[in-house]
Amino acid sequence: MITGDHEDLTEHRVSGTAVFDGKLLHVRRDVVRLPDGSEAVREYIVHPGAVTIIPLLDSGELVLERQFRYPLGRELVELPAGKIDPGESTLATARRELLEETGYSARSWARVTTIHPLCAYSNEGIELWLARGLRHEGRRLDHGEFLETFTLALPEAVEWVRSGRITDAKTIVGILWAERIAAGAWPEPGGSGPAPVGA
Amino acid sequence: MITGDHEDLTEHRVSGTAVFDGKLLHVRRDVVRLPDGSEAVREYIVHPGAVTIIPLLDSGELVLERQFRYPLGRELVELPAGKIDPGESTLATARRELLEETGYSARSWARVTTIHPLCAYSNEGIELWLARGLRHEGRRLDHGEFLETFTLALPEAVEWVRSGRITDAKTIVGILWAERIAAGAWPEPGGSGPAPVGA
Repeated sequence: MITGDHEDLTEHRVSGTAVFDGKLLHVRRDVVRLPDGSEAVREYIVHPGAVTIIPLLDSGELVLERQFRYPLGRELVELPAGKIDPGESTLATARRELLEETGYSARSWARVTTIHPLCAYSNEGIELWLARGLRHEGRRLDHGEFLETFTLALPEAVEWVRSGRITDAKTIVGILWAERIAAGAWPEPGGSGPAPVGA
Repeated sequence: MITGDHEDLTEHRVSGTAVFDGKLLHVRRDVVRLPDGSEAVREYIVHPGAVTIIPLLDSGELVLERQFRYPLGRELVELPAGKIDPGESTLATARRELLEETGYSARSWARVTTIHPLCAYSNEGIELWLARGLRHEGRRLDHGEFLETFTLALPEAVEWVRSGRITDAKTIVGILWAERIAAGAWPEPGGSGPAPVGA
């Protein structure tokens, strides 16, 4: 509920089934009852959720990646990110993915926000974490994972967003958020300082 | 290619097939050859693309929607948006969806950018359009479509992003972009003024 007086837009499940159970994607099709009592079909991806890391070096540069994205047939520039493993806290996912993909560990972690990248047909939520106090330890890519990392000054990353060189939604949100924190326009996110894994 | 000297990360299709052909979702599974010569499976949604409209009233307020998003089991606050119909230009989609969902027509349209909401498993691209010179004509919701519209001052929308009340990725990008244009931090997007449908 967002405000007090508006209609109830809730859709209630009547029936449902898993219609595709792949290696990566899991698709459900549910029949739902709409607010006017009629029925409709909803098809959507069931996803465990993911994290995106905003790794900010002491120099003020971001650690970014270029990665070939097969569905789009081309490389995209992205912030490090990854899927939450079963039973894993989002902070543990963030630490693991940052180390695996970029080789950095971070002294300070702060949870920034949660976004929904495609609410029309996926239940995926992405939690964004700001990582600072970075130290390079050497990366450990998963087998079959190919990506390159590079660093870019925050203002330049913002310009890459404006010019359309960066188009990945989670990355755009992370960069514009980091810039607002760096400019003092938005407060520091809470929970910085050494945080326990599995919190 | 993003810079001159980096490895070729391209994944080449070896074989592929449509594994789920639903009412809304279309899923493919392809076998690809990775840069090291090994093979991997890629499952992804094939999508026609979408538009998101940033409707900015002369008063400086945005026109927003609340809509129940079944995959998440709750309402989200979003900018108006919709899928591109076959053969339709993105501007025509933007005009159509703005009118259908909010009842507004716009005198001025400017293309802002294109974003990729979920590059890991969808080929969907979303084109963002800024709509100004709005005039209310009365909305024409599709059968079975339930949503409420409301207006919100741009600074308040930015605050809803910061506080986590707005979590939809396309909406966050649209709001933060609009604020930068309104603040003069980013130039006006090109192509404003009356634009031909089907351009």
